Amino acid sequence: MSESLEKAYKELIERTVEVSRIYSCAAVLDWDQKTYLPRKGSDSRAQQISMLVGMGHQKFVDPKVGDLIGELKAGGYDKEEFSDEETNIREISRAYEKAKKVPTSLVMETAETTVKADAAWVEARKKSDFESFKPWLEKVIELKRQYAEAVGYPKEPYDALIDDYEPGATVETIGKVLEDFRVELVDFVGRVIGSGKKPDTSILSRHYPVDKQEILGKMAASAMGFDFDSGRLDKTTHPFCTGLGVGDVRITTRYNPHHFNDAFFGIMHEAGHGLYEQGLDPKHWGTPRGEAVSLGIHESQSRMWENMVGRSLSFWKYFFPLAKGIFYETLRDVKLEDFHFAVNNVEPSFIRVEADEVTYNLHIMLRFEMEYAFFRGELKVDDIPAVWNEKFKHYLDITPPDDAKGCLQDVHWSNGLIGYFPTYTLGNLYSAQFFAKAKEDLGDLDEQFERGSFGELKQWLHKNIHTHGQRYRAGKLVEVVTGKPLSHKPFMDYLKSKFGPLYGV
Amino acid sequence: MSESLEKAYKELIERTVEVSRIYSCAAVLDWDQKTYLPRKGSDSRAQQISMLVGMGHQKFVDPKVGDLIGELKAGGYDKEEFSDEETNIREISRAYEKAKKVPTSLVMETAETTVKADAAWVEARKKSDFESFKPWLEKVIELKRQYAEAVGYPKEPYDALIDDYEPGATVETIGKVLEDFRVELVDFVGRVIGSGKKPDTSILSRHYPVDKQEILGKMAASAMGFDFDSGRLDKTTHPFCTGLGVGDVRITTRYNPHHFNDAFFGIMHEAGHGLYEQGLDPKHWGTPRGEAVSLGIHESQSRMWENMVGRSLSFWKYFFPLAKGIFYETLRDVKLEDFHFAVNNVEPSFIRVEADEVTYNLHIMLRFEMEYAFFRGELKVDDIPAVWNEKFKHYLDITPPDDAKGCLQDVHWSNGLIGYFPTYTLGNLYSAQFFAKAKEDLGDLDEQFERGSFGELKQWLHKNIHTHGQRYRAGKLVEVVTGKPLSHKPFMDYLKSKFGPLYGV
Repeated sequence: MSESLEKAYKELIERTVEVSRIYSCAAVLDWDQKTYLPRKGSDSRAQQISMLVGMGHQKFVDPKVGDLIGELKAGGYDKEEFSDEETNIREISRAYEKAKKVPTSLVMETAETTVKADAAWVEARKKSDFESFKPWLEKVIELKRQYAEAVGYPKEPYDALIDDYEPGATVETIGKVLEDFRVELVDFVGRVIGSGKKPDTSILSRHYPVDKQEILGKMAASAMGFDFDSGRLDKTTHPFCTGLGVGDVRITTRYNPHHFNDAFFGIMHEAGHGLYEQGLDPKHWGTPRGEAVSLGIHESQSRMWENMVGRSLSFWKYFFPLAKGIFYETLRDVKLEDFHFAVNNVEPSFIRVEADEVTYNLHIMLRFEMEYAFFRGELKVDDIPAVWNEKFKHYLDITPPDDAKGCLQDVHWSNGLIGYFPTYTLGNLYSAQFFAKAKEDLGDLDEQFERGSFGELKQWLHKNIHTHGQRYRAGKLVEVVTGKPLSHKPFMDYLKSKFGPLYGV
Repeated sequence: MSESLEKAYKELIERTVEVSRIYSCAAVLDWDQKTYLPRKGSDSRAQQISMLVGMGHQKFVDPKVGDLIGELKAGGYDKEEFSDEETNIREISRAYEKAKKVPTSLVMETAETTVKADAAWVEARKKSDFESFKPWLEKVIELKRQYAEAVGYPKEPYDALIDDYEPGATVETIGKVLEDFRVELVDFVGRVIGSGKKPDTSILSRHYPVDKQEILGKMAASAMGFDFDSGRLDKTTHPFCTGLGVGDVRITTRYNPHHFNDAFFGIMHEAGHGLYEQGLDPKHWGTPRGEAVSLGIHESQSRMWENMVGRSLSFWKYFFPLAKGIFYETLRDVKLEDFHFAVNNVEPSFIRVEADEVTYNLHIMLRFEMEYAFFRGELKVDDIPAVWNEKFKHYLDITPPDDAKGCLQDVHWSNGLIGYFPTYTLGNLYSAQFFAKAKEDLGDLDEQFERGSFGELKQWLHKNIHTHGQRYRAGKLVEVVTGKPLSHKPFMDYLKSKFGPLYGV
């Protein structure tokens, strides 16, 4: 390799890391906004984040970055596929080509608007007041539409947004995956619900003191391998995980003293994300080689820990005595099998993040259809509550009692994260395919879980997924790890093998 | 005024506000570092803060800023003394002339080093291990020495540092104030301690559960007028207050379950700073007109609320029933007068922030002498523990049992805040002079405090001090508000009138 190419690569990396560092500062301010910021501080915070995001964007779209990429490609510095260099040049180039089409002013306006819209959403959700949130949502959708037009798209404006979260995915490719899946899923949901069997879920609605929930949640996250010397758990309105720098990965949750699931499985979910972030290679921090592949792959990690591990019988064989110890008065009369059945209750419900594994993906399909309709101009913001409730009735046969439990429940739209939802279903499908392969490689995982041993699974995920960063794109990664392209079959197999026996279907 | 001057002024303000906004982002990261950052995240955090501080510095020292200042001065835009425009041009110019002499690389290195030194200090203090902190302190002092040489100074290198915190003050001017004060103070300390009278302080070392301390502390801060919708209270190693933006002022404290004073008076102290920050004019945010005058004036606010209000008998006439209610088991046998005498115990002690009002300034004099000696090259870092203990013996006639209670107790040196300590004594002197004037203007403050009414004092401080920002420099402000130049007399009068009767001297 010539010395000048090496120099160019070094400069490209330095510039990329600096941009990432600016964004990581914005991420600290964003985390703080969602956890600790005083109410009257939100306008000032919006200006701060907007400024930082604008600075990062401006630095990244510097033509010099394009020149360096061009020089490296022309010189063949990226010729060895999947090497560190090829990975970084490929993905920096991809991001650069997209970013340079977007005016910095639009980036800044979107950042400022979404921070304010988030504050408005928090208030609107509290009061179930869609009207007060409407002008903000209109503004966010308009900004995302401008963004889609600026960056361009293969067929649909919505494609431009999906691609931000799941590079390369489109309405068409996702639509195809969902189509076959939907048919099998709807049939299975019908059979489970029609089985007439139902666990006693009242045991989950007893009194679970918040401070004890926090202790048990931290125990579960620690058992999974989440390192609290490199991370934190805090409270928020809408749970999330964020990586703020090497050695600093933060997860958040919300507690309901009268419901066990929300915080416990929420913490396992976010800790699953957290393990991915903590498992990235620190020496590649700030470059694609040291960053997560896609949100779908991210979600595969969180859903695997939350559901395939956290809702398994083997997990509870180990963990139930601990839960009984800490919630002695609440759980002393409860049997393991009844508790396990209760946390695997399948039932149409209003809140996505609290939905069971079986009906969960129907929540996503509904959102995917609605977002797609926004961006084709077929759905107006005014009509959202009515359409939401209509689709809910269609898919889940229940009607939300108010918008707080309906179209106002999610943080995504106020945050401008449109195109993000489909990655949740992709995540579920990826997770089952990965988990099946992990079981093949690691032998009897259930026997390990029963002993409270989760380290082998964690190491397997680190080695096969986390440590690669963006070496492979999502579809390729699935093939490299499992030997097969993505399919909904492993997920349906997983559902059937778990819920079939529970519900006798 | 010509249109071009107006345009120049607008641009100068916009640039200044942007620089302030960058620094305010760094302040959020700094607050987080001192409250919630996971242990392994400190290197990454140091890089983030260093980058932001470097960006802010680079933007500020842009020659265009100098051109704008020059244009405005030449055009006479600052001709009306103490107007908003004159204030901003005067103080931006002062800061610019200083900043432009400092290389950005030094600013960044100092920022990164002090974040790491802070983490090292936290560990060293825990273990009372001066040796592990020594290399960091040497590095910090060396960087501050380089800084002093870069910006220049009238006589002493130490002057360059003092001027950062108390613009215009020097070793000479402060030395003069301290000289006369010291003589009177040492005499008074001797008489109080020699009086033979001593309150029963064991009542303050009973069990005070931390969660209740937090409630009582928040009640006190709220009663003072600190707005928790525009602020927060969190835990930290070394208490501080920081303004992070409009509507976002944060105070911190530390709790000792076996000592009442630390958190309670610490919270009142920081809330006093907080009221100043919350009282600044939001429409001038990010410019000198909307910023605090000096650290001495800042400290006058915190010390006034902590001591002149918080340790007064009238305050406790109102507050003691509340304290008794919340700490029922701890305080039920305690009489108001005994509690009041206990919180006013005068006794040589090791920890500055917990020292009584009378001996407090001796702690400062000792530090002032030591810092001055560093910067004359008369004191080596190696000798700090021995010299500290020697001076302690001289001033307070006691010897710290270890370095954690000695030279490792303060956060300042690790944070690069050298030249900061003298502002504490200036603050005490300012506070007494302001408080005497407030009493003149507002009548019987004690009668108001007894009724739990602190609003008039708060409004007086807002109107006479907070809302002016940097309109007047510290010395001028004292004259404008009180009609007299700074003197140690009001502070000695205050000490005598309060502690004379308590100790019969």
